[in-house]
Amino acid sequence: MPIHHQNETSLVRALLTPESVAIVGASDDPTKTTARPQQFLAQAGYTGNAYFVNPRRETVQGVRAYPSLSALPEVPEHVYIMTGAEAAIETVRECAHLGVTTATVLASGFAEEGPAGRAREDRLRAAAAEGEVRVVGPSSLGVVNPRNGVMLTGNAAFGEPDLPTGGIFVASQSGSVIGSLVSRARGRGMGFAGLVSVGGEADLSLGEICTAAVDDPGVTSFALFLESLRHSNDLVTFARKAARAGKPVAVYKLGRSDEAANLTVSHTGALAGEDSEADALFRACGFARVEHFESLLEAPNLLLRLGDGPRAHHPRIGVVTTTGGGAAIMVDQLAIRGMRVTAPSDALVGEMNAAGAHIPHSLIADLGLAGARHDVVTTALQHLQDSGEFDLIVFVIGSSARLNPELAVEAISERGGYDVPIVGFALPEAPEAAELLNASGVPAFRTPESCADVVAAAYSRRPPALHDGFRVGSVEVSASEVLDELASTQLLSQAGIHPVEYVALTPEEIADPDLALPFPFPVVAKALSADVPHKSDVGGVVLDVADIGELRAAAAQILSSVRNAMPTARIDKILVQRMQAKAVTEALVGYRVTRDVGPLVVLSTGGVMAELFSDSSVRLAPIDADTAREMISEVKGLSVATGYRGLPRGDIEALVDAMVNMSRLAVTAPDVLEAEVNPLSIGRDGDGVTALDALVRRAVPNTEASAVSVVTSAQAAVGAH
Amino acid sequence: MPIHHQNETSLVRALLTPESVAIVGASDDPTKTTARPQQFLAQAGYTGNAYFVNPRRETVQGVRAYPSLSALPEVPEHVYIMTGAEAAIETVRECAHLGVTTATVLASGFAEEGPAGRAREDRLRAAAAEGEVRVVGPSSLGVVNPRNGVMLTGNAAFGEPDLPTGGIFVASQSGSVIGSLVSRARGRGMGFAGLVSVGGEADLSLGEICTAAVDDPGVTSFALFLESLRHSNDLVTFARKAARAGKPVAVYKLGRSDEAANLTVSHTGALAGEDSEADALFRACGFARVEHFESLLEAPNLLLRLGDGPRAHHPRIGVVTTTGGGAAIMVDQLAIRGMRVTAPSDALVGEMNAAGAHIPHSLIADLGLAGARHDVVTTALQHLQDSGEFDLIVFVIGSSARLNPELAVEAISERGGYDVPIVGFALPEAPEAAELLNASGVPAFRTPESCADVVAAAYSRRPPALHDGFRVGSVEVSASEVLDELASTQLLSQAGIHPVEYVALTPEEIADPDLALPFPFPVVAKALSADVPHKSDVGGVVLDVADIGELRAAAAQILSSVRNAMPTARIDKILVQRMQAKAVTEALVGYRVTRDVGPLVVLSTGGVMAELFSDSSVRLAPIDADTAREMISEVKGLSVATGYRGLPRGDIEALVDAMVNMSRLAVTAPDVLEAEVNPLSIGRDGDGVTALDALVRRAVPNTEASAVSVVTSAQAAVGAH
Repeated sequence: MPIHHQNETSLVRALLTPESVAIVGASDDPTKTTARPQQFLAQAGYTGNAYFVNPRRETVQGVRAYPSLSALPEVPEHVYIMTGAEAAIETVRECAHLGVTTATVLASGFAEEGPAGRAREDRLRAAAAEGEVRVVGPSSLGVVNPRNGVMLTGNAAFGEPDLPTGGIFVASQSGSVIGSLVSRARGRGMGFAGLVSVGGEADLSLGEICTAAVDDPGVTSFALFLESLRHSNDLVTFARKAARAGKPVAVYKLGRSDEAANLTVSHTGALAGEDSEADALFRACGFARVEHFESLLEAPNLLLRLGDGPRAHHPRIGVVTTTGGGAAIMVDQLAIRGMRVTAPSDALVGEMNAAGAHIPHSLIADLGLAGARHDVVTTALQHLQDSGEFDLIVFVIGSSARLNPELAVEAISERGGYDVPIVGFALPEAPEAAELLNASGVPAFRTPESCADVVAAAYSRRPPALHDGFRVGSVEVSASEVLDELASTQLLSQAGIHPVEYVALTPEEIADPDLALPFPFPVVAKALSADVPHKSDVGGVVLDVADIGELRAAAAQILSSVRNAMPTARIDKILVQRMQAKAVTEALVGYRVTRDVGPLVVLSTGGVMAELFSDSSVRLAPIDADTAREMISEVKGLSVATGYRGLPRGDIEALVDAMVNMSRLAVTAPDVLEAEVNPLSIGRDGDGVTALDALVRRAVPNTEASAVSVVTSAQAAVGAH
Repeated sequence: MPIHHQNETSLVRALLTPESVAIVGASDDPTKTTARPQQFLAQAGYTGNAYFVNPRRETVQGVRAYPSLSALPEVPEHVYIMTGAEAAIETVRECAHLGVTTATVLASGFAEEGPAGRAREDRLRAAAAEGEVRVVGPSSLGVVNPRNGVMLTGNAAFGEPDLPTGGIFVASQSGSVIGSLVSRARGRGMGFAGLVSVGGEADLSLGEICTAAVDDPGVTSFALFLESLRHSNDLVTFARKAARAGKPVAVYKLGRSDEAANLTVSHTGALAGEDSEADALFRACGFARVEHFESLLEAPNLLLRLGDGPRAHHPRIGVVTTTGGGAAIMVDQLAIRGMRVTAPSDALVGEMNAAGAHIPHSLIADLGLAGARHDVVTTALQHLQDSGEFDLIVFVIGSSARLNPELAVEAISERGGYDVPIVGFALPEAPEAAELLNASGVPAFRTPESCADVVAAAYSRRPPALHDGFRVGSVEVSASEVLDELASTQLLSQAGIHPVEYVALTPEEIADPDLALPFPFPVVAKALSADVPHKSDVGGVVLDVADIGELRAAAAQILSSVRNAMPTARIDKILVQRMQAKAVTEALVGYRVTRDVGPLVVLSTGGVMAELFSDSSVRLAPIDADTAREMISEVKGLSVATGYRGLPRGDIEALVDAMVNMSRLAVTAPDVLEAEVNPLSIGRDGDGVTALDALVRRAVPNTEASAVSVVTSAQAAVGAH
């Protein structure tokens, strides 16, 4: 009968620093994948108790084998289960009954394999729930802590000795990525406090695993590799805790190229596809999203170096170099990402020349050949760092980085701890230089592209903005309905979004000889019917109606046209709207509750251009006015309303109000799943903004209709305006 | 008295395979830069005659020193001059008189240093012109041929033994880049047939140097590093010769981020800035432009492998892998660059599964763990290559690439020579795998980003389109004038660009009671005056004029408004244009003769959006209809007129005609420096296109006015429409 632990083992201890581990399904054949954990544990010098379970053998690779977990002399803290799927479920059940803290499951064949697999995954969870065991996986390639030899993996990449240790904790939805990151970090001054292949996240999500890892004092930063967004609420919990602990997070996520999601009723859906949802979430979480694979390794050092203090939106970046060509590449790469390089002032150039660090009056502080002298580099960096002219210094190092790291590189590394951070990029291949620099607080990069990528990601990162108003996480809705334009307009009007003047009239009211509109002509007449999503396409809209006579004609024409096109459609009323004077421009303001992230607010220009150019900005809802202004600055097409080329300015503050009000639907109207004003007419400064068309989709409680079928039938509404 | 060569030495021989070299300014102090060429030549085993010139010493580093070139026992074929600027000019003169073929000048202090430097550069050229010596530089870090030990450089990067040899010829406007490329190529199966730092191109341009290098049979491909466009006519000559020889060219050019050039009168100028000029030139030259620094090394192998045959615009790319996560990164990176991955057909999946290479029905052919088996990889690649379903196969290799290259990597390399090309990307760090793959005709990449970059660049490369109609090269114009709208319209109308119906009337003609317009109302009235560039801003345009009465009022209002705003402006006539029915969309079609490249044709959408999103396409002029169609497909905003989301199609063939006609100004009207129709109204299919506004700038012969001042004064015309 195994001995139970006196104190409950914490998740982080069981994950990363277990005092005892067991490998279930350990092989005696040294060439088998299932034999590797035993080899790796021995090679890495794991000092805890390691047990090997194989019911068919007395020994495996010369070490005693046990027939089951129950037969072990103690309850292991972490069990790595390398058997097939069905056997793994039974072992997880055994872990639950024994009081094991963590079990990691290698087997695949769960949720990724359709209904049968999903049922199997339910049984896996149920087995775990028979006790308090938490499960990593299934399909996990393992859990590794290079600091103490915990090698619960069969990944061949971990067979190399001397794994690079350091402060980075890697959590990855792709198993093969963790080994590849280790090989790419080797010999470059970067290393790991832990690597977890999170697998299918049937129980422990990536966010939960990282949340636990925050408690490990050896973990200083996080690098996440995501294939898709799952369990975003756990990511938010992790983000809050990581921020409190001052441990920065870099993330690489697949799906930059995805076609926007189409399974939504509004344009907002197309604009806020899965990848921009992820952007909004990462931004709110304070994660730095990188675009290059190696940036994931290179970012944590810079994020740590920059710390949590106030960070400039537009940092003053100084570039100093011994190679003009290399520095020019860097300036170009930074500028492509919207990062401007700042030239040293004339006074600073004068000071530096007087002090013997000669640089030209130019954008780049080019030390030329003298930049291979230790004293010149030291003098130059002292002056640049002390000048108060820069927030960050990028040193582009020439051939000396490879051939004589004791020259420029050593001088740079000595200045790494001073007040203005320095990053290093060596134009030649120079791993030793990178190692020296990284070790001394100067984040070093292998390509100019990843250097610029990480600098841009680090400065676009913001402190987490995770106020309690956010409802992040999965949303399940059984059914939903699309409101007609009148009901949508009324709902949004109550929410504080000002509609164009309107009146809804029955055909009889329009025929009434005493008819008088509450606003002057010209007007627009529209069919008002939940049955007619594509109003324009069936003759359901008439513009520029000049008087009562034309209105009556327009109403008759609308009724007749729609009846011809859609004989069964029911038209209750004609919506009459006042024609709007020409606006400065038009915007789309949208709101959407997504399955993976929750309520989002979206801003873009109106029309097809926004879609063609993916010109939109997305945030978790609700937002405040400052966030709304930041979003406006991110939509290129709206710069025509913010002073571009001397064009008349639009009423930006009224747009800000409309966005804030729209986003507050997340708080005030939890049943609204989607809302959109398109177009929102933006008047000149002081003239306000006006909603010209509106669309709302709302959850319907207590019906048996499926949400999907409702959404599908309403699909045709896209493009109705 | 030195012996002259009997036969004239060719430039390529003197550059890359000289039988004798001399170093002028060679130092005896082994720590000096000027001592290095002697060390490098010895280390690299140069077998020709190497002479060292130093008038102050008998020996340098133990070898006889000569007081001057004239004192040498023979005329060296290539002289590397390491002295200061003034001494270098005298040495070049000596080379000219002796009959030296090539002299490379290290000294700086020439054109980059203002008027005095430019004068010095003129004297350098004049000294060379006293004979037939051709000069590389000044500011050249040297000329290197790793194949035979020609090491005319003081760049420390070349001090390492065993320079990687191969077929790539590098020509670079940045000196430090050549050494860095060598270090980054080491141990990856890539190598060089020559590297030239072209310096200031005072005499030999980069294009001329490369043109010479085409003749070297050891040169199989070219990698160009450009900081700016210079001597584009020489690049064209080189491109023609390289294409004939089947030697592909990759180019990396700085300036992707440049703000568009503003010193031109039209929007066309802002849209066709220096970098898009370069794009147009490279495309016409058949060069593959890469965006990543390391791509410059990695591209030549793929370009060679793809050869000159017909190449798909949208290649069918198959992705096969042993690591799903790595393959997903690759799919994402390809898609970001517009390259779509093709899934294997169901039939192919069935065949492969039957043959033992098990893959799922999915976008990616994921072999899983079995992908580490040599036989499985061989079988999989055989089927994929023979299926006829793919133009290119991208193999994303997992950990076996690093740990067991004899497995998947060897199997891939054995399939490298078969009919469908394969490229390899290893997710882990795996230089040995890259070396093996590159050596066997499978281009290998270090990052997923550079792999996708090179694939995209290789497939967007087209055979050179350098017909004789092109006037590529520098243009010098003493003065130019901007035509008014009427004259511009007439000129473009003669060129075949159909204007909206118009008539130009004097105020008296408009006042005439018998006035009748040759077209129906409504019309637009505009001030016609060369003095009024910003017509709209001074009340010089009235839209939607409904009848004769309104026209008279409009004319009066225009005259009065313009007179108030610009009392000295002279208005000869009122331009009356027929109002155009609502078009499908509007485009800008422009033409511009640039200083560096010559005549270009530009297409974009109308309005500020094109500028905000850099949404334009540029080609050398003239173009044919196919090229025009290709340009239309490149302008995202014009997709609203080509069937996007079921919108009505515009008259694309009429747009094609307008573009071709505009581009033919390069042939028919060499005095036109700039022309623009903005907007060009695009009617529905069959309705044609109509120029609504036009602007032409034309060279003025025989005046003393400077072109720059004319352009500057006309600047205000931007945005007039």
